[in-house]
Amino acid sequence: MTERTAISPTRQEDFPEWYQQVIAAADLAENSEVRGCMIIKPWGYAIWERMQRELDRRIKAAGHQNAYFPLFIPLSFLEKEAEHVEGFAKECAVVTHHRLEAKEGRLVPGAPLAEPLVVRPTSETIIGAAFARWIQSYRDLPLRINQWANVVRWELRPRLFLRTSEFLWQEGHTAHQSAEEAEAEALRMLRLYEGFLREMLALPAMAGEKTPRERFPGAVRTLTLEVLVQDRKAIQAGTSHFLGQNFARANGITFLSPEGHQEHAWTTSWGVSTRLVGTLIMAHSDDNGLALPPRVAPTQIILLPLIRKEEERAAVEAACGRLLAELSEKSYAGEPLRVEIDARPLAGGAKNWEWVKKGVPLRVEIGPREVAAGTLSVSRRDWSPRERLALSEQQFVANVEQTLAEMQQGFWERALAFQKSHTRRIGSREEFLEFFTPKDSENPEIHGGFAEVPWAGDTALEDKIHEEQKVTIRCIPLEQEPASGTCPFSGRPAKHRVLFGKAY
Amino acid sequence: MTERTAISPTRQEDFPEWYQQVIAAADLAENSEVRGCMIIKPWGYAIWERMQRELDRRIKAAGHQNAYFPLFIPLSFLEKEAEHVEGFAKECAVVTHHRLEAKEGRLVPGAPLAEPLVVRPTSETIIGAAFARWIQSYRDLPLRINQWANVVRWELRPRLFLRTSEFLWQEGHTAHQSAEEAEAEALRMLRLYEGFLREMLALPAMAGEKTPRERFPGAVRTLTLEVLVQDRKAIQAGTSHFLGQNFARANGITFLSPEGHQEHAWTTSWGVSTRLVGTLIMAHSDDNGLALPPRVAPTQIILLPLIRKEEERAAVEAACGRLLAELSEKSYAGEPLRVEIDARPLAGGAKNWEWVKKGVPLRVEIGPREVAAGTLSVSRRDWSPRERLALSEQQFVANVEQTLAEMQQGFWERALAFQKSHTRRIGSREEFLEFFTPKDSENPEIHGGFAEVPWAGDTALEDKIHEEQKVTIRCIPLEQEPASGTCPFSGRPAKHRVLFGKAY
Repeated sequence: MTERTAISPTRQEDFPEWYQQVIAAADLAENSEVRGCMIIKPWGYAIWERMQRELDRRIKAAGHQNAYFPLFIPLSFLEKEAEHVEGFAKECAVVTHHRLEAKEGRLVPGAPLAEPLVVRPTSETIIGAAFARWIQSYRDLPLRINQWANVVRWELRPRLFLRTSEFLWQEGHTAHQSAEEAEAEALRMLRLYEGFLREMLALPAMAGEKTPRERFPGAVRTLTLEVLVQDRKAIQAGTSHFLGQNFARANGITFLSPEGHQEHAWTTSWGVSTRLVGTLIMAHSDDNGLALPPRVAPTQIILLPLIRKEEERAAVEAACGRLLAELSEKSYAGEPLRVEIDARPLAGGAKNWEWVKKGVPLRVEIGPREVAAGTLSVSRRDWSPRERLALSEQQFVANVEQTLAEMQQGFWERALAFQKSHTRRIGSREEFLEFFTPKDSENPEIHGGFAEVPWAGDTALEDKIHEEQKVTIRCIPLEQEPASGTCPFSGRPAKHRVLFGKAY
Repeated sequence: MTERTAISPTRQEDFPEWYQQVIAAADLAENSEVRGCMIIKPWGYAIWERMQRELDRRIKAAGHQNAYFPLFIPLSFLEKEAEHVEGFAKECAVVTHHRLEAKEGRLVPGAPLAEPLVVRPTSETIIGAAFARWIQSYRDLPLRINQWANVVRWELRPRLFLRTSEFLWQEGHTAHQSAEEAEAEALRMLRLYEGFLREMLALPAMAGEKTPRERFPGAVRTLTLEVLVQDRKAIQAGTSHFLGQNFARANGITFLSPEGHQEHAWTTSWGVSTRLVGTLIMAHSDDNGLALPPRVAPTQIILLPLIRKEEERAAVEAACGRLLAELSEKSYAGEPLRVEIDARPLAGGAKNWEWVKKGVPLRVEIGPREVAAGTLSVSRRDWSPRERLALSEQQFVANVEQTLAEMQQGFWERALAFQKSHTRRIGSREEFLEFFTPKDSENPEIHGGFAEVPWAGDTALEDKIHEEQKVTIRCIPLEQEPASGTCPFSGRPAKHRVLFGKAY
């Protein structure tokens, strides 16, 4: 018999709807009245803040400095790089006026701007213009800048966190003396993201290069981290671009070389966004709601006092207070434990389920029974929601760091096993077809994922496969064996192995 | 004989130009190609991040949760509160299209929006709409939300940090059951800002209420912190608004009271912005550039190795490395010391002046002479730039926390003495005229500041005084003696004392 789950439908029944319901049940975000723009609610924002703080620390440690550039980009700036503007033109929010005026009792746009402004979809062009002023000589290089900002890309089919018209992100921009140095920087930042995903979010990612079809508009090379989530689709969780001299030429970023020549700089850009929150949800959550790896959980331990009668209050509250004080002295992964007491006058069951759905790693119930027995009733988010372990306070406190570390490791191992079990080497078109569009629909859950295929095709062939199968090349993995085998689509000897998958 | 100063002109010679030059010399910010929008450069942004981190900590400790709301506000939302829209209509950036299209070889705004969107000048209306959904019963109250965001108010006369078309800020929004509770919240947050200004930025502020003329559009009461800066003008450094039920009515924020009635909530909003960086500069800097109180300095101590010959390098670098390690163990005001080594191959004098102009509290030079003598050459930003004190490493390290605390206190005392010496009780129109527009221009620096005046006037009288004297009522101070005296402008018995001043 199956247990009743907190989220309905389940992942199996309807994954997209399950995702919406997990977000609603954990109170992470909601749609606003502005089409495609979400409201990130406190619990969702706290998760983003955890990501932000740790990423910011790592980016600074890697030698980058934060700065802030204008929200608005003059239309003429965007036009400077042809591929770039073509890539973003269809998604741009355009500011055309700078005041409102009354007209027939209604407000309408007033003073028109001489030149329309675009709300930044990304900042290569406006930051490039600043770099052109800041960089004079090779002594000014490398220049490494990062920005935390909101960006806007108009979305016709928005989905909370994964695809919203406005989203929050960081975008790094660097300039270098040589192509080699810039390429190394783009790779270094991809690896930084990869380490962050692994250590903080317990997310295994396939690191690879995009084919020309999926490249960032204006880039020479785009590197990507592709995460397989539980419906076996891939999410692009972070990208890092080697921009060659394209934006340097468009913006006039030149420097005097040590040999006395004026040269164009070599630039990179790289970013991750609030999309990471969506990726985290889709990768780790279950049919009882959100599940947070301890390192990214805003609250790691929630203490739930169970008070049915007033005369029980003093003893229970004292026990909770003492436990909170003891836990606050402890740390995990180099930071003080994040512990809260939920003292709201609600029934214990309702409170317990709320924190299950919010994904808090450890729940500790303390009622008169526990006080009398000198124990705690401990539940873990990676156990069944009804499971409880009676532990002495001393046992719990002494082992809490290790427990959280084990849970973090558990999230990683489950996600890695999932990725491995849904990555298949495929050598023929028939296998490929069967993998993504199985005729046998009895076991649909064993189909789909990453198909690793020997490849010698081009963009036209990729377009054709996408049209027929709705799959695309997610990346050309960086970790490659020497090329071997035949490309099943072109019949030519493979240049490398690529990963096909369905994409978010 | 006067010393040559690093900044020219001096404060005396041309204060507005001095301000621009301090910003340029410290590399804090610059104008962008988008009119009124600034680029906040790494050193300026690091100061803002210091402010942000500490304010965020205090706001969270006061019980508020961070969230994020859309950048765009539908025009119809803004129209709901009549005073509000009137106050902001002239400053709104308006988005009218959501794509770009090619037309005769040029890009032009493409698909028009059904309803224009305004780039948020402040978020009462869009957050109010969310509050209306989130609040059902008195049990949902108080609701306390804070947002860190960029906002846009189109500026025709922009000035870096103080008045820019786009700026960064936090805006708090709360909803309460009663007028009393909401008023108390508005006051509590003003006091939180006041404590932050005092303890972190060493800025004394006059806390008071705005007259109707200067009130936030849509507010019932606006509380303000007014800081007097070195040209004896006042800067509004933070505001907190009691909004009554105005926005609750406009947005339909209602709740079921404990007695079972549907009632409109009582709301507040409050904010501080990157304007604080400008205030900090104008209050504390001198003719040698920026001067940072230690608590807000991104780097508190800069170590400057002086190496003229290669054979000196090893010993000097070893001494610097050892000092860095020792200082990194120490803390000040509850945080590890922020220490950097400037190892760039520049002349010692140039490096020293650069850090003077950047405002770093302590500079420590270490060259072969210091290594041989076993001393350090220590300079303080609150001493003359050429002054140096030879200290043993041990002496310096043992006293560094106390030194920084003394410096922080010194910034506060100087600023407080300045404010006090430029606040004058004034009882007649003649005195008032002489205070703000002295006939004797030989000592202009002793004139102007805050004029504390018994007041019984109204908005029309304020308008008239503003027209004639270019001064306005900055606030009605919260700390008031019982009303006494006669208003020199209306001739009526005073209702209270107000502070007049010239405003930024």
